[in-house]
Amino acid sequence: MTRIPRHIGIIPDGNRRWATEKGLGKEEGYSHGISPGMELFHICQNLGIREMTFYGFTADNTKRPSIQRLAFSAACVQAVEFLSKEDAELLVLGNTKSAMFPKELLPYTTRKVFGNGGIKINFLVNYSYQWDLGLRQGVPSSMKSSDVSRVELIIRWGGRRRLSGFLPVQSAYADIYVVNDYWPDFTVSHIKEALAWYSKQDITLGG
Amino acid sequence: MTRIPRHIGIIPDGNRRWATEKGLGKEEGYSHGISPGMELFHICQNLGIREMTFYGFTADNTKRPSIQRLAFSAACVQAVEFLSKEDAELLVLGNTKSAMFPKELLPYTTRKVFGNGGIKINFLVNYSYQWDLGLRQGVPSSMKSSDVSRVELIIRWGGRRRLSGFLPVQSAYADIYVVNDYWPDFTVSHIKEALAWYSKQDITLGG
Repeated sequence: MTRIPRHIGIIPDGNRRWATEKGLGKEEGYSHGISPGMELFHICQNLGIREMTFYGFTADNTKRPSIQRLAFSAACVQAVEFLSKEDAELLVLGNTKSAMFPKELLPYTTRKVFGNGGIKINFLVNYSYQWDLGLRQGVPSSMKSSDVSRVELIIRWGGRRRLSGFLPVQSAYADIYVVNDYWPDFTVSHIKEALAWYSKQDITLGG
Repeated sequence: MTRIPRHIGIIPDGNRRWATEKGLGKEEGYSHGISPGMELFHICQNLGIREMTFYGFTADNTKRPSIQRLAFSAACVQAVEFLSKEDAELLVLGNTKSAMFPKELLPYTTRKVFGNGGIKINFLVNYSYQWDLGLRQGVPSSMKSSDVSRVELIIRWGGRRRLSGFLPVQSAYADIYVVNDYWPDFTVSHIKEALAWYSKQDITLGG
């Protein structure tokens, strides 16, 4: 490996679909996500990665049925408690001024060194980008781009899988379609395929 | 097509790689990106898409060699002038208080209806998300996540190609790797493949 990322973001999605495919209740998927997370933590620790951020749950996720909310909250509490027994510099980051924030995690909301520290772990719990940025819901008038609305689909040509700073607030929930061809080689099939793909994506906005 | 996006973001990347593969100077790619853009505009207009945002260039892009900067600036000016001859509601959005903003585009920096209007077109020119959000470079202390640094690599399990509001500022230039398997089916090969892919990506940060 020639080049290792300093900081990795982890979006551990698919717990509910996994449970459904196993014939379990959707809420039963989350507890099966804890041990993969610990395994991944140990791999990254051994690789010398300096910082990891796990996407626990968002403020929008808490609008789901309460049986699911209780299950993913419990899984996050357990994951954080496991991590606190490791060598890690741990921070739980999210809106604590809401009943949806698990009280068990309040002691972790300032960064603390556990064991010998060494790797920074950020765990997002009851997080929302609007809360993070000090914005109200939607695109606030304080933004220069206030006249630009939410983006549903982003199509990027040239094969790179990144946003490159493209409208971060409006793109927060956008579906991102990457065309490997370079932009000057645009053909109508690109947009047709992107739209066909988009029409099969679910829109949840985190709910 | 069952479901059409209301607003599409367009990241027309690969102009320089296209030119290099054709044996041309890198700066010669941009002018070949104008007619694809007009073709795509007409397709989206006919599909009834309500809003499009084109990523022209960013403040970071202007750090490139001036021959390239002049070429992509000229291509953006020409594209906007072409669009102003169409039925469109046009807005050029970017930092006008910089010498890098093309003077020719100043008349377009408040939204105006051209022809019969109908589709909103946002064209990002000398844009930066820090400027948009009113932030200084980096992760400012006004953010709740100020202790979380830039993310280099995001790995998402479960096949969905979106950020879902994950740390929008820190993720602005992150490379996004999607694993189709669900998170509870995590295996070490996922992280190995993600890291191998990451190590082959270039890091430009728009420069």
